[in-house]
Amino acid sequence: MKAELLSLIDILGTVTFAISGVFAAMQKKLDLFGILIIAFITAIGGGTLRDMLIGDLPVSWMRSVKVPLIILVSAICAVLLRKFIHNFQQTLFIFDSLGLGLFSVLGIQKGIMFGFSPGICIAIGTISGCFGGVIRDILLNNIPLIFRKEVYATACILGGLVYFLLLKLHFNKNWLDVVVMVLVFLIRFLSVRYRWRIPSIYNDKNEI
Amino acid sequence: MKAELLSLIDILGTVTFAISGVFAAMQKKLDLFGILIIAFITAIGGGTLRDMLIGDLPVSWMRSVKVPLIILVSAICAVLLRKFIHNFQQTLFIFDSLGLGLFSVLGIQKGIMFGFSPGICIAIGTISGCFGGVIRDILLNNIPLIFRKEVYATACILGGLVYFLLLKLHFNKNWLDVVVMVLVFLIRFLSVRYRWRIPSIYNDKNEI
Amino acid sequence: MKAELLSLIDILGTVTFAISGVFAAMQKKLDLFGILIIAFITAIGGGTLRDMLIGDLPVSWMRSVKVPLIILVSAICAVLLRKFIHNFQQTLFIFDSLGLGLFSVLGIQKGIMFGFSPGICIAIGTISGCFGGVIRDILLNNIPLIFRKEVYATACILGGLVYFLLLKLHFNKNWLDVVVMVLVFLIRFLSVRYRWRIPSIYNDKNEI
Repeated sequence: MKAELLSLIDILGTVTFAISGVFAAMQKKLDLFGILIIAFITAIGGGTLRDMLIGDLPVSWMRSVKVPLIILVSAICAVLLRKFIHNFQQTLFIFDSLGLGLFSVLGIQKGIMFGFSPGICIAIGTISGCFGGVIRDILLNNIPLIFRKEVYATACILGGLVYFLLLKLHFNKNWLDVVVMVLVFLIRFLSVRYRWRIPSIYNDKNEI
Repeated sequence: MKAELLSLIDILGTVTFAISGVFAAMQKKLDLFGILIIAFITAIGGGTLRDMLIGDLPVSWMRSVKVPLIILVSAICAVLLRKFIHNFQQTLFIFDSLGLGLFSVLGIQKGIMFGFSPGICIAIGTISGCFGGVIRDILLNNIPLIFRKEVYATACILGGLVYFLLLKLHFNKNWLDVVVMVLVFLIRFLSVRYRWRIPSIYNDKNEI
Repeated sequence: MKAELLSLIDILGTVTFAISGVFAAMQKKLDLFGILIIAFITAIGGGTLRDMLIGDLPVSWMRSVKVPLIILVSAICAVLLRKFIHNFQQTLFIFDSLGLGLFSVLGIQKGIMFGFSPGICIAIGTISGCFGGVIRDILLNNIPLIFRKEVYATACILGGLVYFLLLKLHFNKNWLDVVVMVLVFLIRFLSVRYRWRIPSIYNDKNEI
């Protein structure tokens, strides 16, 4: 049941990352193919960069057509149903946060599998979770959102720290990934809900 | 004779991609070295990303000095002869479209050689053909052109679909690559000539 | 003593590249985590791209926690001491130029170790030295500085040419790297000091 749950969240995460790409691309008035490409890159960007950095090549989405197909179908549905989905921003945001949590944990586990040290595994998890959105923003000529407003990378890093803390405390390995995934989700979700900000280092005025 | 033809088009494709980089960089008033670097990245970007994704490392341009030399010479010539070439925009555009076709087909064939499924091979072909220009636009701080106005990636994807269709119909393998290359070229060429557009998904007004 | 000197400059180079990332990120008012990530990417970007291109994976910073820790500590110090450091721009600039020289030479040597031809080794050295800053500028949505104003890539390329010239002249291998490092440093340092420019190819007016 747990495997099925994770697999379901993996698909939902991919779907929602793809949809977030579609909406970002439509804001910049890209044509249909531009939208599909941005959806694709948003959904697979983080995992792709991770695999290129650690040398697990070819990158994972190339190994089966499942992931590209899921992305293609979700993106087309998102374009067709765009007015409908727009009213479900809240739902989308929840899936997006779940996806962030799952992709971070998957990245950390891949790092452990390849024998990296904890600090590096946390970096790998953060890259997996966040860089799809970063590449999306670069392609659309925005300063990546995660550098500006949201508790995004922070959620991944905190989740990663807790992961290795619990691992050291011999926490039940079976549920470790779920717990951390939920934690990353909660940090991200609550931070947006209650507008948490990373404490500003600027004194309001342009003083640096 | 066919091998020589393909090799000639390969060189012409590299040359014209390099020249398109030179002109894009001059529009942004980069200095001479900036121009050379952009020319280089435009010409080798697609193939380099392809090789990094599938794990065919070191990337191909590192394996001989031929390609870097061709790029260097073309870029310098383009800078020196810039007024002259400007009158040959039409010629350049033809070579650029030929290069797009050839690089797509080369990407598809490399994908097949590495044992990827058809859908992935088409993605690899599209990346090979298009991403040099994408990286060029990112470096010059533009939204990549292919996401906006032109039937560019679309030509690669259609060409890729036809490639595998013909392969299934046992089309003469000897000429398959040339046929698809010409097809990609024609789609791209005619689309610009007759201003084909991907049907807009926006209702003219800012309504999404 | 030489090994210790190089190792010290390596650390100083990493530190100053990280600090240059911190200041660039603060200019764009990024939050604390955004700053740390930009610092990190500026410091490791060049070497990471180099390793991904030549296939030396996983990329080097993943192999020990030393480099990430150095970057983390320097970035935090830079944020805390930002007013203080601002008065030391000159000092920072010197370290940055030293780092450019060292990273170029390290890149060239890695290229030789992997058996690449001299032209490719020079390209690898240039990528190692310059691309951390390029990626930093892309993420912050600027046209990369090196394409615009400074004798930056040029210093790396000239240094690389001299490296292989001296190698051919059987120059004492023991000091070759130090000599070239100092040369790259001097070209960069003097060019800024005396405002050397690459001769403009534009006739002042918008005439291309």
